[in-house]
Amino acid sequence: MKKEQYIFGIHPLLEAIDAGKTIDKVWIQRGMNPETTQRVVSQLKRGEIPFQYVPKAKLDQFTRGNHQGVVTSISPIEFSNIEWLLPTLYEKGETPFLLILDRISDVRNFGAICRSAECAGVHAIIIPAKGAAQINADSIKTSAGAALRIPICRVPSIVQTINFLTESGIEIIACFENGEEPYFEADLDKPFALMMGSEDDGISKNNLQGATTSIRIPMAGKTASLNVSVATGIILFEALKQRALAS
Amino acid sequence: MKKEQYIFGIHPLLEAIDAGKTIDKVWIQRGMNPETTQRVVSQLKRGEIPFQYVPKAKLDQFTRGNHQGVVTSISPIEFSNIEWLLPTLYEKGETPFLLILDRISDVRNFGAICRSAECAGVHAIIIPAKGAAQINADSIKTSAGAALRIPICRVPSIVQTINFLTESGIEIIACFENGEEPYFEADLDKPFALMMGSEDDGISKNNLQGATTSIRIPMAGKTASLNVSVATGIILFEALKQRALAS
Repeated sequence: MKKEQYIFGIHPLLEAIDAGKTIDKVWIQRGMNPETTQRVVSQLKRGEIPFQYVPKAKLDQFTRGNHQGVVTSISPIEFSNIEWLLPTLYEKGETPFLLILDRISDVRNFGAICRSAECAGVHAIIIPAKGAAQINADSIKTSAGAALRIPICRVPSIVQTINFLTESGIEIIACFENGEEPYFEADLDKPFALMMGSEDDGISKNNLQGATTSIRIPMAGKTASLNVSVATGIILFEALKQRALAS
Repeated sequence: MKKEQYIFGIHPLLEAIDAGKTIDKVWIQRGMNPETTQRVVSQLKRGEIPFQYVPKAKLDQFTRGNHQGVVTSISPIEFSNIEWLLPTLYEKGETPFLLILDRISDVRNFGAICRSAECAGVHAIIIPAKGAAQINADSIKTSAGAALRIPICRVPSIVQTINFLTESGIEIIACFENGEEPYFEADLDKPFALMMGSEDDGISKNNLQGATTSIRIPMAGKTASLNVSVATGIILFEALKQRALAS
């Protein structure tokens, strides 16, 4: 397994972009020279690379050396492109089975979900460029290596991706506490993407509007909700079961 | 939520035992005076309290004060007794739904499982005195408080408890990779206890011999196994579904 790798400074970052490396995230020091910041940020925006402004102390934690106000994490995985991937599924005669994670931010949850998804035969996981858990040594370890084996598509806008998927004949099924149908009554043996929301505030309103079906996991106890990785596992394996019994 | 609490020294430990406090675990310094050790250990064995011999450095991490070679963690929860609890379920007309965790040692897995179990309507979780995750502030937090709401029974021997359950008409269903039946073909609408094994080596041989049925979660990918908290959630919610549809 490749460990995540950090590079320091502005020129190494620009070189990494030129070299076509997959960049996981960039941290930029708050209050840097505005002209320099502008030059870096415009490159990041063009490449749809996630970045965040942070205090100098945060950057100092990465290295004792000179970081020039910019720290870059090179991704240990290569991202896939959903617009290229989807047609190949249809060509192979597969019934697309996708997973959209709307800002799952906990690294261990993300890793456990990758593991469940790979075990359930999910074809690709779609994550947003902003607000998703970092894909690093921890998430890969928690995934038991599955994060390296399942295609992960990082997209600039979940809303746009939902539109693309819907136009391509994929049903968007959102799972949340007040979803309409019990999950086991939904037909999961057709082309669909399951959408799960963040640990803090669930699925965002904009993304929810793109969903065609909403499902819930009926519960018996007093605890308000399940851990998101457990909830995701329950739905994914219901789908795998339906598909196995239908074939 | 009560935070876990540590007490230091031999007399405070003996007083806590006398006062009937629920003790989570005791750490004893290696190479202490054998007579003192013997006096403490015989009390612990009588009370079926988990303990472990550790180097002095480990105990020094708990306190800067004098620990006299003994550190005790008082449990933030009160344990339940399965032999008292089971008859009350039958009296209430419930179909017993139990969960046996054979040495789940990761605090976050244990917390997530408590959460799923409470959400699925499990009546009690059975854990062994040795090898189980510590029930502390972290596991309670991961459980979203569910660990405080679901009865947890700590037993000196899982084998003995399995015998007791079997004699009481409870089927023991073990879930592991090579289990015989796909989980969704098993009848989970009868009195049963689901048994799940440790992250490292699954269900122990002795415990497995007590199982009447074995099930597996059929999988599609290349990853060998699911995270144990996800696997447990999948089975528990299959049971809840079967029970809801049957009633």
